[in-house]
Amino acid sequence: MSERIDPDDFLLSGLVKGVPGGVAPFELREIGTRRWNLLREDLPLPAAVLKSSAVDHNDRWMQAFLGLSGAMIAPHGKTTMSPALFRRQLEHGAWAMTVATAQQVQVCRAVGIGRVVLANQLVGRQAIRYVLDELAADEKFEFYCLVDSVAGVKQLAEAARGRTLRAPVNLLIEGGTMGGRTGCRDLASALEVARAAAAAGPALRLRGVEGFEGLIQGKTSEETAARVRAFLDFLARIAEACLHENLFAPGPIVLSAGGSAFYDLVVERFSAEKLGRETIVLTRSGCYLTHDSAMYRRFFAELQGRRPELGKLGEGLLPALEVWAYVQSRPEPTKAICTVGRRDISSDADMPVPELWYRPGANAKPQALGPGHTVTGLNDQHAHVTVPAESPLRVGDMVSFGVSHPCTTFDKWQVLWLVDDAYTVTSAVRTFF
Amino acid sequence: MSERIDPDDFLLSGLVKGVPGGVAPFELREIGTRRWNLLREDLPLPAAVLKSSAVDHNDRWMQAFLGLSGAMIAPHGKTTMSPALFRRQLEHGAWAMTVATAQQVQVCRAVGIGRVVLANQLVGRQAIRYVLDELAADEKFEFYCLVDSVAGVKQLAEAARGRTLRAPVNLLIEGGTMGGRTGCRDLASALEVARAAAAAGPALRLRGVEGFEGLIQGKTSEETAARVRAFLDFLARIAEACLHENLFAPGPIVLSAGGSAFYDLVVERFSAEKLGRETIVLTRSGCYLTHDSAMYRRFFAELQGRRPELGKLGEGLLPALEVWAYVQSRPEPTKAICTVGRRDISSDADMPVPELWYRPGANAKPQALGPGHTVTGLNDQHAHVTVPAESPLRVGDMVSFGVSHPCTTFDKWQVLWLVDDAYTVTSAVRTFF
Repeated sequence: MSERIDPDDFLLSGLVKGVPGGVAPFELREIGTRRWNLLREDLPLPAAVLKSSAVDHNDRWMQAFLGLSGAMIAPHGKTTMSPALFRRQLEHGAWAMTVATAQQVQVCRAVGIGRVVLANQLVGRQAIRYVLDELAADEKFEFYCLVDSVAGVKQLAEAARGRTLRAPVNLLIEGGTMGGRTGCRDLASALEVARAAAAAGPALRLRGVEGFEGLIQGKTSEETAARVRAFLDFLARIAEACLHENLFAPGPIVLSAGGSAFYDLVVERFSAEKLGRETIVLTRSGCYLTHDSAMYRRFFAELQGRRPELGKLGEGLLPALEVWAYVQSRPEPTKAICTVGRRDISSDADMPVPELWYRPGANAKPQALGPGHTVTGLNDQHAHVTVPAESPLRVGDMVSFGVSHPCTTFDKWQVLWLVDDAYTVTSAVRTFF
Repeated sequence: MSERIDPDDFLLSGLVKGVPGGVAPFELREIGTRRWNLLREDLPLPAAVLKSSAVDHNDRWMQAFLGLSGAMIAPHGKTTMSPALFRRQLEHGAWAMTVATAQQVQVCRAVGIGRVVLANQLVGRQAIRYVLDELAADEKFEFYCLVDSVAGVKQLAEAARGRTLRAPVNLLIEGGTMGGRTGCRDLASALEVARAAAAAGPALRLRGVEGFEGLIQGKTSEETAARVRAFLDFLARIAEACLHENLFAPGPIVLSAGGSAFYDLVVERFSAEKLGRETIVLTRSGCYLTHDSAMYRRFFAELQGRRPELGKLGEGLLPALEVWAYVQSRPEPTKAICTVGRRDISSDADMPVPELWYRPGANAKPQALGPGHTVTGLNDQHAHVTVPAESPLRVGDMVSFGVSHPCTTFDKWQVLWLVDDAYTVTSAVRTFF
């Protein structure tokens, strides 16, 4: 069984991006005692901060949403890869952690997480060997992964042959869409895989059906929603057919889908499915906890449009993740260059969103940037910001950037600061990418 | 002065992406004794490997190129952020290391590098404080950074006021292009900044002129080269004007430009400049050591076109960086999904380039992938590969991907494996991002 680690043992020093140069190394758990404040320039920039009040709010919102629906969540840990946030999510009722890779399973195990959904195929000698080692060592390890091919089932079965496992490899048949990512494209191939899984022997157990609807795109949001619903119907048909052929192992059947955009549709469709067996409806949003300032903000507005009744849960999700940088150059009247680049902040979905500015020693608190401040490009270590000619920004000013797609900002930091509303650092999370 | 660290102390364990799960933690310096082999599936995938023979070749090629020209190099460390590679570059004659951020300066100092060019503005309380602390502690620390505004010069001068430094802050005036990144756009503003620098007192010393031509783009490669030449002329004019006004501090004048695309033009133009003072022509390529399989391959072909005489140096730069992944799904006849995503490999310049495939236990060695294998998309943890219907790829096969833009692959790994031509791991480099 994996060695256990405590992420708060992590030594902060100037070698870690975001930590002031020259400080004597100290353990992450001590950070709150330093009372470092972003606006007092105690931190070097760029720095990634999580606003505690927004994280708390989003956490409560999702708990309330799930409470209404009766669904469970296995938050996708790949978003943050922060065991401190995993712990919080599990303490607040998450059924399991979801991850995307064997290394991410390894991190979950190292911090003692007992139930893990690898929402992906488990392939390759080392990854399979590692998971089987864990299952051989710990009868309490409840592990799920996806299969979408007979070849994949056979590889797992072959690796498990001759090994004594104290817990099985739980399999979910993955359904997919034509032109999409992984997953069986039709019922016949899904059933073929399911039959192989059911016949593979006691080390493998078919436990449910899974899909990822997050990449489905229609021409309009209505068309997208309709396609997502059709995909969820397809997943339900796979489950019905597996049940009809008695392919599932004993125990609850897991029906899982749901990234961070359409989990309302997932909960609606799967909760209505009557398989006549105990069923766990399992959503997997990873991004709800920090939300964002662009892509998921748009998706969430659509979700609110589909579900006006969620208004009773109060204010919706809030962006919790900001990356702060300095203005380092004002080389042209309508241009500012800031000390943040594609190595510090997401650029895969949208460009970062300039939101606030602050002049150390002059402003009492951060000010909203007026209209017309737009990131028009990122280099590795620079942001090109187009600004109005009357922009207040000067060299040495601080600017906050909201992100689009939190996953690809988290993975650019080994440590993110949790701050209160006055931007004082109260704790920190270490990431494992 | 910063505490010194040895990057080879780094503990490898399953928490680090690329290391097999469950191995007992061990120091990076011991990796060669393991004799791990990629093709024997001793490594989990994805894994990033550096082919030693190609790195060695590229290292020799650049030394030979510089030997022909008489120019110096301060390789841009931001590319690899790998002190093991920095050490090699310095031992093989590099004049200094170049970096892009204060955190990168901190890493250089922690491994004992004495001469550092911050090819960027130094802004922000912590970054400035750190550099001044280092200069106050170590008279042998030779530090250079860029200025492109009077405001920036004033911030540095103000921070230095009242401090006793054992070594000065050496400044390079940055010239830029309209619509470009940082840098003074015209001679008048450059001279204004230079005068402020020269008048700022003994802590600041104006030592040269710098520019970055790497973002200049014309409609054709000839037009791009012409624009780069015009920009280099502009930088030379700044130097001439500063010299005319006697603004430079004593000592050699540094003329520096050169990313990894146009360093031949930089060397040509600056070597021809006759300032009548000792001059250091300083190029800064960061990418030559690993080269790549797309963007810099194209740039290098253009360089070879401009400089047929470089043929006498033998074979040109070779791609040394590969990321290997498994085929995890073959969901459609012309589609393969591989276990590598935008968190593992560059996607900012071009999509990764599928190059080789290998079937463990079946192939004697990696085979070239036939035509028609193309990465058409990356998600966080997946590659979408379009393949010919007759592609040999099956679930469980291994595929190597060449990269475009090494910087943005290095920053996705804490450790990259150095391998021999049989893909046995002989050593490893730790990165600091």
